[in-house]
Amino acid sequence: MANRIDPTRPVDEEARAIARDLMRTARFAALGVLDPESGAPFVSRIALAATPSGVMTLVSDLSIHTRALRADPRASLLVGEPGAKGDPLTHPRLTLRCDARFLDPDPAYRADLRAAWLALHPKAQLYVDFADFRFVAFDLQDGHLNAGFGKAYALDRNDLTVK
Amino acid sequence: MANRIDPTRPVDEEARAIARDLMRTARFAALGVLDPESGAPFVSRIALAATPSGVMTLVSDLSIHTRALRADPRASLLVGEPGAKGDPLTHPRLTLRCDARFLDPDPAYRADLRAAWLALHPKAQLYVDFADFRFVAFDLQDGHLNAGFGKAYALDRNDLTVK
Repeated sequence: MANRIDPTRPVDEEARAIARDLMRTARFAALGVLDPESGAPFVSRIALAATPSGVMTLVSDLSIHTRALRADPRASLLVGEPGAKGDPLTHPRLTLRCDARFLDPDPAYRADLRAAWLALHPKAQLYVDFADFRFVAFDLQDGHLNAGFGKAYALDRNDLTVK
Repeated sequence: MANRIDPTRPVDEEARAIARDLMRTARFAALGVLDPESGAPFVSRIALAATPSGVMTLVSDLSIHTRALRADPRASLLVGEPGAKGDPLTHPRLTLRCDARFLDPDPAYRADLRAAWLALHPKAQLYVDFADFRFVAFDLQDGHLNAGFGKAYALDRNDLTVK
């Protein structure tokens, strides 16, 4: 059996570019939150949009993840979806550590968010105006990029800024 | 704006069938664990296999999720991948709440696990024998099925038994 060492590599421009591209192109993500009752992890799927003003989602107050984020804003996002073929573990993916922030419900501000969201998620027109839906921003702490077997990178907040 | 009520529906045979099918066909999952230092959630991708003897994965001791599961076995898995087209939130997905259990490294037992794993994940041949790789079972607690907009189901352990 082969012995390996920690596969984390120094962050370079290529790693930053891969990470930013994974964020920019992601239309959904796996969201990890803390169960308010048990403190255990809970992972669900959310829609996502990375805009120049931040990474955001649109979620329902009726969902488990929204109730969890109101109790504890600490969250994690996984983006970068493997295709239907090949080993899914060779496909690049990015884990983000972040804090959720419920966005101001000021009607004018919401109109901007709504337009930006619908430009990327046109089918959300069906439910974006339901009373239980909220826009939430994710304030990024850091990231962990896995760009394929043995290619891991620890990214800081600056590495993740979508330009 | 429309007001909606909790969309959780009573579990029926169709919901159980969808959930079991999502587990049975999943070759990978988003894994949520607790960061040992901060207690915050951390989501990463793992390979997965649901066998009659349980849901299992093969992970490296060098990875963040493995170190986290050794510190706290509480975990969550998200399975059910959307296709490239359509609204990803209409695609059925299943959240599992579970506890990770590192499997006995007894060589004979490991040979069985190894064969079962490689039948589903032939490309793992490249690394299955590396000294840092471990088989881990997930003991299921319960599940949350989202079978499309407004179609949520709270499943118990028995609902999730893969037959």
